[in-house]
Amino acid sequence: MSRKNDKRDRLVDAADELIYQKTFHTTTLADIAAKADVPLGNVYYYFKVKDEILLAVVQKREAELQSLFTVWDQLPNVRDRLRSFIEENSRGSDTIARFGCSLGSLCQELGKQGGDVALYAANLMRKTLSWVEKQFKALGKEESALSLAEYLIASLQGISLLTLTFKDPAFLHRQSKHLEQWLETA
Amino acid sequence: MSRKNDKRDRLVDAADELIYQKTFHTTTLADIAAKADVPLGNVYYYFKVKDEILLAVVQKREAELQSLFTVWDQLPNVRDRLRSFIEENSRGSDTIARFGCSLGSLCQELGKQGGDVALYAANLMRKTLSWVEKQFKALGKEESALSLAEYLIASLQGISLLTLTFKDPAFLHRQSKHLEQWLETA
Repeated sequence: MSRKNDKRDRLVDAADELIYQKTFHTTTLADIAAKADVPLGNVYYYFKVKDEILLAVVQKREAELQSLFTVWDQLPNVRDRLRSFIEENSRGSDTIARFGCSLGSLCQELGKQGGDVALYAANLMRKTLSWVEKQFKALGKEESALSLAEYLIASLQGISLLTLTFKDPAFLHRQSKHLEQWLETA
Repeated sequence: MSRKNDKRDRLVDAADELIYQKTFHTTTLADIAAKADVPLGNVYYYFKVKDEILLAVVQKREAELQSLFTVWDQLPNVRDRLRSFIEENSRGSDTIARFGCSLGSLCQELGKQGGDVALYAANLMRKTLSWVEKQFKALGKEESALSLAEYLIASLQGISLLTLTFKDPAFLHRQSKHLEQWLETA
């Protein structure tokens, strides 16, 4: 990997972490440059404005999400795929208790503002919703697949918020157990 | 009401609206002063720092929440009380599609930061959770009351986030209908 790409990757990784931990609005290009150990003047070579780095972060997160979906899609049992999705969330419970869901909190923050940046975040949420819907369709729930997907995502998002609010991973663990039971009969 | 109290009330109302519409972090004391039509220099007479005005906003929201609970507690049918709670959310769906849930988005934003301000927001969420739990206890669900309350609040919070993300009140309406059906047998 060239030195140039390395710097860009370091900037995107740093932005990803800071946006998640501090919110997008309170993260400055200077913060990102410092964390990535890249001189601030160089940042503008890669990203003219903060929105451009946000787009790069969303693209990176989308690729990560797609990798997970690709792995899970190889599981022959459809309910195992959905269980993997629920467990992936639950595994991150300590971090969620500190900073919330990385996707949910970005949608919450940018949704208020609207415009292009909100669409970037919404696009990630839509991809997640579509993947879950596809699984329920594979379970033969042609008509209710979207409604089941909305239910599952909303449950996880809501409980992630309570986990963050009360700084207690137990909220997410309890809900994950309920959702895995629900999945047996859904 | 004295002129002095009037100014303080105007500042708290303006802060409440701006924090909801724009987030706490992007709202400045100057924004609040301008919206309340109070000279910025006067703001410091009432609130030394932005955290103090946030505390006043949370206290105002707590009083508003308590007023609703007091009205609903007078309904003889316990399920009607919980239905009123669900409907109150659903009625705000157009605003939720623009700015999210006022309580959920505050908890999401301040939760990342932690500290005293996060505790103010968490306290409001705890009051809501406790009221819902009390209703399920009144329905004889002594053991599962907290779990049912968590489920109801998480469902509403999660769907409020999807409503905001996709800017579509239909998400909240669909979920409210499901929750009212669920309530019949819960």
